[in-house]
Amino acid sequence: MTTTESHLLPNGQDLDTARAEAARAYELDRAHVFHSWSAQAQIKPMTIVASEGSYVWDGEGNKLLDFSSQLVFTNIGHQHPKVVAAIAEQAAKLCTIAPQHANAARSEAARLVAERTPGDLNRVFFTNGGADAVEHAVRMARLHTGRYKVLSRYRSYHGGTDTAVNLTGDPRRYPNDYASSGVVHFNGPFLYRSSFFAETEQQESERALDYLERLIQHEGADSIAAIILESVPGTAGIMVPPPGYMAGVREICDRHGIVFIADEVMAGFGRTGKWFAIQNFDVVPDLMTFAKGVTSGYVPLGGVAINDAIYSTFADRAYPGGLTYSGHPLACGAAVATINAMEDEGMVANAARIGEQVLGPGLRELASRHPSVGEVRGLGVFWALELVANQQTREPLAPYGGSSPAMNAVLAACKSGGLLPFANFNRIHAVPACNISDAEVAEGLAILDKALDVADGYVTG
Amino acid sequence: MTTTESHLLPNGQDLDTARAEAARAYELDRAHVFHSWSAQAQIKPMTIVASEGSYVWDGEGNKLLDFSSQLVFTNIGHQHPKVVAAIAEQAAKLCTIAPQHANAARSEAARLVAERTPGDLNRVFFTNGGADAVEHAVRMARLHTGRYKVLSRYRSYHGGTDTAVNLTGDPRRYPNDYASSGVVHFNGPFLYRSSFFAETEQQESERALDYLERLIQHEGADSIAAIILESVPGTAGIMVPPPGYMAGVREICDRHGIVFIADEVMAGFGRTGKWFAIQNFDVVPDLMTFAKGVTSGYVPLGGVAINDAIYSTFADRAYPGGLTYSGHPLACGAAVATINAMEDEGMVANAARIGEQVLGPGLRELASRHPSVGEVRGLGVFWALELVANQQTREPLAPYGGSSPAMNAVLAACKSGGLLPFANFNRIHAVPACNISDAEVAEGLAILDKALDVADGYVTG
Ligand SMILES: Cc1ncc(COP(=O)(O)O)c(C=O)c1O
Ligand SMILES: Cc1ncc(COP(=O)(O)O)c(C=O)c1O
Repeated sequence: MTTTESHLLPNGQDLDTARAEAARAYELDRAHVFHSWSAQAQIKPMTIVASEGSYVWDGEGNKLLDFSSQLVFTNIGHQHPKVVAAIAEQAAKLCTIAPQHANAARSEAARLVAERTPGDLNRVFFTNGGADAVEHAVRMARLHTGRYKVLSRYRSYHGGTDTAVNLTGDPRRYPNDYASSGVVHFNGPFLYRSSFFAETEQQESERALDYLERLIQHEGADSIAAIILESVPGTAGIMVPPPGYMAGVREICDRHGIVFIADEVMAGFGRTGKWFAIQNFDVVPDLMTFAKGVTSGYVPLGGVAINDAIYSTFADRAYPGGLTYSGHPLACGAAVATINAMEDEGMVANAARIGEQVLGPGLRELASRHPSVGEVRGLGVFWALELVANQQTREPLAPYGGSSPAMNAVLAACKSGGLLPFANFNRIHAVPACNISDAEVAEGLAILDKALDVADGYVTG
Repeated sequence: MTTTESHLLPNGQDLDTARAEAARAYELDRAHVFHSWSAQAQIKPMTIVASEGSYVWDGEGNKLLDFSSQLVFTNIGHQHPKVVAAIAEQAAKLCTIAPQHANAARSEAARLVAERTPGDLNRVFFTNGGADAVEHAVRMARLHTGRYKVLSRYRSYHGGTDTAVNLTGDPRRYPNDYASSGVVHFNGPFLYRSSFFAETEQQESERALDYLERLIQHEGADSIAAIILESVPGTAGIMVPPPGYMAGVREICDRHGIVFIADEVMAGFGRTGKWFAIQNFDVVPDLMTFAKGVTSGYVPLGGVAINDAIYSTFADRAYPGGLTYSGHPLACGAAVATINAMEDEGMVANAARIGEQVLGPGLRELASRHPSVGEVRGLGVFWALELVANQQTREPLAPYGGSSPAMNAVLAACKSGGLLPFANFNRIHAVPACNISDAEVAEGLAILDKALDVADGYVTG
């Protein structure tokens, strides 16, 4: 852990000022801020006072390498000067207008997104984030098909609003599930913990498709509006779909008149080394949700990319949905600057290269030496380490849906080593910015190496 | 309509540049932007190229007095220099961090909101906008009470996501209603179109409460988690609740252990001449949703203010909800600057004064001369003109849920006169910024006067 003594932070603050500000921020946080997904009296949030590129600084002035991209959204790293400048510029020009009017920032953002989406996803409905993008995509699918049910997979996350959290296939759904949201969950491919008794990727893919086909038969194809899938499931474990799976789902959807919604909120905008993760599989969905990377989280923005057929449904019939900040100029201005910065600086290609040549091989090398690593999965700057107590039984280092002293110790070792990873149950995700450098990856791998020594101490077999 | 010939727009653009930009923005909008609540092929959005204070400029360079505050959110007017500067400053300092970490902007925004909320609404859960604030407030109420059903009134709007739009009591709900959202709608007080055969405000209040009490009896009080009410219903018609009504609802909720959610998304942050509209009635809700005015829409932000009892429910039990951008630093920085600007410049008091002394009397004077005005309602900078074809029968100038040639003609007259009102069905809302000047109000009233001449032409009795 590097403490930035007697230096200025990247935002120009000296350390004493930053520490005093952090202490006050912490105190007010505990007095007034209600946090997501938490037991409010049991949390001790880390304060962040500054950030730059691949690093953040906590309230003590400790510099941490950000392998989390926060919640996997700062795809261009922190405080990218071009985007910071564009935000100031758009704020000075036109902060805000209502969604029914048109404006240059929104139009250009829509053009840049549509230019990058696959196939005929030519229209963009902007939202504030991922959950509302998912809500609106499902609504479009329901009204387009005249059907209600939506299929989504276990081991997935689709957002926090009611419909989105009910689509979610992780334990966060349970307290919000009143069995009234019209969602049916299915098992997707995940060879390491196969639901299909499969032993090869090919088997896993074929059996998962066979299972989905049967499920549709039993649910009644004519009652199913949509299948929603993260192109690569993110928080649930970065399980890259095996060859043939996504194309198979596309074929099933076509055959039954079901809308295929690809959720690219986390996987999109460069994370997998392509603009959109589904482009790894040469498949075109009917609707595609996005958020996070579209502005690198600098200003809240999300959206749904819409194909021509679904657009036509709402060409002469009103789409019954909306929100005050749809296509918010400041957010769209940030999106324009983010996409242009990614393009101009080759960040998508860098993410692909880092995955193939630096981060992927580096993580596999760690796995070869650490018995606590059950599997390394991913692509681009989107990687998961599955930590296990036992490589044979694959017993996870924390139970599904929970934490454990072992995982807490590993995460503490990361933090004290100066690394901020993304963690979920028994997994550590290495999900840095798309423009991370080779040297920063090496620094992160070295810290992970030591943290995995701690994990190894919990291995039982 | 004033055309700003041979002048620079407030954003520094000359008119030719702005027009060219607007033409391109319009073209790209029609090619790529999917709009809220619209039949996409049938709309011709007005392009907005610049804004300042109470004015916006369209793509032709026409200067329009903004009596809509867009969607009733630019409470401090357009491009307030302090808030524009604060956005640039926060962007340069720290654009974004994840919700689980703490930061100074979020903490200070929570403090400033909590300081202004009534009673013990001491905690703030930040969202991106109004709909997700409503979704989370309902979730908190359901988990706090262990009950599911939520009561909301007809003639209301609560947002566009599934649960929020199902709470909504206007026709936008119908295409999204699968009878599975656990909402029961009731009639609220609205003397001009009384559901209770009442002839006085007092009768309307008493009968509306009596009706609500019976409904609760028939629905089963123990099955009802919450009653949600806009403190003053906004889009649905700015029906200020009659004396005693809100206190009566509070008493009913207390007696039955029902959570009282006040939706202040539109009515909050100065609009009614108080920080929050419910402060007009000396009532303290259990949860209060807000958005719009909290940042004047400059950066998307919403939230739920939470009382101590509901906070306690989630002190040691995880709250099962969240979102990537909860407490977004840039948005919270904008909220801090907005609230401080409102405070420092006395905007809330100005809104109250404008309502009592300038806009209210001015609208009533118009009503006294125009047979097309059935009723004038409101307070602060939150006013509705109910336009009718016949003052005796009260037949609206457009049907409930629809538009009409008459209303279209009135709106065209406003626009060609240089005024941008907020319109809904047969109503025109005069909802300017809280810091509008007397002269600007006078300008708006003069344009409305001419537009109402057009409306008078459609009066039949
Ligand atoms: C795949 C996916 N979909 C949807 C969401 C919800 O996005 P938001 O938190 O912006 O509502 C997330 C957030 O992590 C996500 O990862
Ligand atoms: C009273 C009320 N509640 C909720 C909402 C929804 O807010 P948003 O459009 O930001 O989702 C609105 C929007 O107009 C509103 O007026």
